[in-house]
Amino acid sequence: MSEKTNPGNYFEDFWIGQELVHATPRTVTEGDVSLYTALYGSRFAVQSSDVFAGDLGLAGAPVDDLLVFHLVFGKTVPEVSLNAVANLGYAGGVFGAPVYPGDTLSTTSKVIGLKENSNGKTGVVYVRSVGTNQSGEMVLDYARWVMVRKGNADAPAPDPVAPELPGAVAAADLVVPAGLDLAAYDTAAAGSPYLWNDYEAGERIDHLDGMTIEEAEHMLATRLYQNTAKVHFDQFEANGGRFKRRLVYGGHIISLARALSFNGLANAFKVAAINGGAHINPTFAGDTIYAWSEVQECMNIPGRDDAGALRLRTVAIKNRPSADHPDKTDLGEYDESVVLDFDYTVLMPCRA
Amino acid sequence: MSEKTNPGNYFEDFWIGQELVHATPRTVTEGDVSLYTALYGSRFAVQSSDVFAGDLGLAGAPVDDLLVFHLVFGKTVPEVSLNAVANLGYAGGVFGAPVYPGDTLSTTSKVIGLKENSNGKTGVVYVRSVGTNQSGEMVLDYARWVMVRKGNADAPAPDPVAPELPGAVAAADLVVPAGLDLAAYDTAAAGSPYLWNDYEAGERIDHLDGMTIEEAEHMLATRLYQNTAKVHFDQFEANGGRFKRRLVYGGHIISLARALSFNGLANAFKVAAINGGAHINPTFAGDTIYAWSEVQECMNIPGRDDAGALRLRTVAIKNRPSADHPDKTDLGEYDESVVLDFDYTVLMPCRA
Amino acid sequence: MSEKTNPGNYFEDFWIGQELVHATPRTVTEGDVSLYTALYGSRFAVQSSDVFAGDLGLAGAPVDDLLVFHLVFGKTVPEVSLNAVANLGYAGGVFGAPVYPGDTLSTTSKVIGLKENSNGKTGVVYVRSVGTNQSGEMVLDYARWVMVRKGNADAPAPDPVAPELPGAVAAADLVVPAGLDLAAYDTAAAGSPYLWNDYEAGERIDHLDGMTIEEAEHMLATRLYQNTAKVHFDQFEANGGRFKRRLVYGGHIISLARALSFNGLANAFKVAAINGGAHINPTFAGDTIYAWSEVQECMNIPGRDDAGALRLRTVAIKNRPSADHPDKTDLGEYDESVVLDFDYTVLMPCRA
Repeated sequence: MSEKTNPGNYFEDFWIGQELVHATPRTVTEGDVSLYTALYGSRFAVQSSDVFAGDLGLAGAPVDDLLVFHLVFGKTVPEVSLNAVANLGYAGGVFGAPVYPGDTLSTTSKVIGLKENSNGKTGVVYVRSVGTNQSGEMVLDYARWVMVRKGNADAPAPDPVAPELPGAVAAADLVVPAGLDLAAYDTAAAGSPYLWNDYEAGERIDHLDGMTIEEAEHMLATRLYQNTAKVHFDQFEANGGRFKRRLVYGGHIISLARALSFNGLANAFKVAAINGGAHINPTFAGDTIYAWSEVQECMNIPGRDDAGALRLRTVAIKNRPSADHPDKTDLGEYDESVVLDFDYTVLMPCRA
Repeated sequence: MSEKTNPGNYFEDFWIGQELVHATPRTVTEGDVSLYTALYGSRFAVQSSDVFAGDLGLAGAPVDDLLVFHLVFGKTVPEVSLNAVANLGYAGGVFGAPVYPGDTLSTTSKVIGLKENSNGKTGVVYVRSVGTNQSGEMVLDYARWVMVRKGNADAPAPDPVAPELPGAVAAADLVVPAGLDLAAYDTAAAGSPYLWNDYEAGERIDHLDGMTIEEAEHMLATRLYQNTAKVHFDQFEANGGRFKRRLVYGGHIISLARALSFNGLANAFKVAAINGGAHINPTFAGDTIYAWSEVQECMNIPGRDDAGALRLRTVAIKNRPSADHPDKTDLGEYDESVVLDFDYTVLMPCRA
Repeated sequence: MSEKTNPGNYFEDFWIGQELVHATPRTVTEGDVSLYTALYGSRFAVQSSDVFAGDLGLAGAPVDDLLVFHLVFGKTVPEVSLNAVANLGYAGGVFGAPVYPGDTLSTTSKVIGLKENSNGKTGVVYVRSVGTNQSGEMVLDYARWVMVRKGNADAPAPDPVAPELPGAVAAADLVVPAGLDLAAYDTAAAGSPYLWNDYEAGERIDHLDGMTIEEAEHMLATRLYQNTAKVHFDQFEANGGRFKRRLVYGGHIISLARALSFNGLANAFKVAAINGGAHINPTFAGDTIYAWSEVQECMNIPGRDDAGALRLRTVAIKNRPSADHPDKTDLGEYDESVVLDFDYTVLMPCRA
């Protein structure tokens, strides 16, 4: 193999404190925003309308937070997860400065945990990744951990280092966009009369609608994010693999679930934090995705009386309706239909 | 079901004079324009080139009129047609102010007619919808009628009100973009030497080319328009339905037919009115669409000697060539290949 | 058939010196750039980031050179290759002024060679096509030749004229963008430490990754380029043809191969010339494309010590890995997996 190609890092190539500078800096444009809308059908008013967003004190319609997530994440693949077996989880994700078309995003990562598995063939790598804009402002800071193959089975196991993973992001740590004033928030234009005050912990919402995924769609999405993980693109190689199918990028499901959640959460105008999340079962083209959400916590935001935060758990399932909220058992065993269990925090206007 | 999700209106939920404010305001961008080109391959010069459009006195390349139609239409689905059985027809559609990238579109509707069907299970709802830009200028004003299910079979039938539907839009009611001057119109760059004077009523044109539709394409399009009608997206539910297939959004066929019509109507640089239209047979992924047009009327535009109007009828068919112009019989029975019968008015430069 | 539709030119319709003005002028936008990224996953930093490009003295991220190629090429189809049997080759392609979003591209062609085939049914047409921007600056100048059907078998054969096709573009004829200064080129952000000095003639690089093509993808791409060649779009007609399948536009493969080549050639920041190229075997949806490259020549660029040129040969293959570099025999017979043999010249930063 040419030394000039990147085979990706194997488990033994990582060390605690290692800093990774990821290619490729990427200017986000209105073209990306349109593609995002075409891929998921998202209808949140703040991200759809410069006028609606401007009336709230923003510079224009900000880029969807999950598009920012995908772009920041995608850059980490060549160094972090090209040889990953599984993307195990996320934690402590905080969205910072809003991203507008024209902003340029870059990502760096730091290795914060390592643990070889007892089989000696794989290990878990924990990284903290930070996405920044052209001014160096943080736009997203999150931890994730992945199971990565060893390239050399004889490489010695590193001393295990378990990172202190953050729990759910506290209300005080959420970043409310500078200048935001929700006085002019128009619920009719936004599509729902239900505000923060109307939700309560424990409430469950079935988002009703279903969306079938096509190969072209998830590949267009994943390439848009410049995510190069080969399991999403190469059917020839997949033919010889475990699933015989290309795998849909897990983030594609997160965005679909968020778009479906509009029906019931239309005023959840911003994702402020990703507290945790796991991809439970794989998704393939042809699968139809449904979603339901549970309100976990209603939080006041220090210093704001126009907006509150909701900690949500959105569960995406496939190929069965979501009316009965397929979930995990008390023992933590998931229903076979569940593909995503996503724990995140949204901002929502509140009544004075 | 959570009270917070929108189940859509049923027939008994509508009343005459009811005003509907639709979500989501939407800023149209160059990204939307590129996707529109990628979805249909449209090649009209005015919509493709800022330079060509600027030479005619426009502020830049306006957004394709049918993209405006889809965006204005898409917003009405959650309140008007989420429980629709069939989209029955359009009438009296007038395009107003040209839309440019950066404009923000909103839609409101008013119920203008109601008629319960004799089966007691469905009824026809007539609405007039008006799309406006951020300055409140009308960009599209049209009537449509849909057959909607009753949610409660025992709900009493409303007094039937048949609206006075407008006929074809008169030449005097067409909106010619302010500042338009066709003196510099370049037929070589536009792709055809044939101008308004060269067409005559009764003339038929086979547009020759065919375009096969994929699932990913019609879903990308329909999501781009933030149209949430579930029949287009949910294969799992479709498996238990009548067709076993996702239905292609009827507007997708209108745009395909218009793009195909470039070959024979390259100088029809603007759709000015939608006089009427009906979706005859359903279209599914895998179908190949062809189209032919008939010139119905050549109209002078009051006060203009650089442009005339052509009232056209464009018929889209599937899975057979269009050279012999498959049509309806004198009794109004359509050939089984016909999927669209679209009556609209275009503007075209004329020779002095 | 209506006289108003374009049936395309047949072999007997061309003459030496014939000048063809092609429709449709096209303003390139950020939307086109996003779609290009989504279609191929290209990650070259100069084309991805306004900041990265700005640091090198450019006005912003230029449009990918191959997107320029496709747009300039697409316009020529209605007059040059609507009745083509095969796209035989390219030569002497030089990229001129960089293209930025907002630029408007037009194409004209001149017939420079004609040769009827001995079967009397087809002939080879050689054209030189020039793409220009709104200021009349050349953005791409290239020759291609296609085999075109005769419309009238009795039309007399023209005197054969074989054009003097240019060989590989000389280093002195490459256009380096005005103002370019590579002093600030950041290899970490660009994704590879390997610069011009690190490559040598004869070196081969397997680009490792594979990409499976879907029908929706190649049709979205080809429509984006306003390329109307019907073999790419019409499955109904294809059912009665030789392959029973829609053919993937050859340029789609060129762009896929270039995007795959990032892994091994990440600093090849600009395609400066297309020396030659041929589409060997057809590609269909479902095929998985791999690519490998050979460095043919390392060239100094007169007057520059910050950049050099590499003449490359990139070979795209399908449905088998590229590690063993499937190629042609000494007799010129290609391996059945080869779909593209592309000879082009890239610019790359060099170490002082």
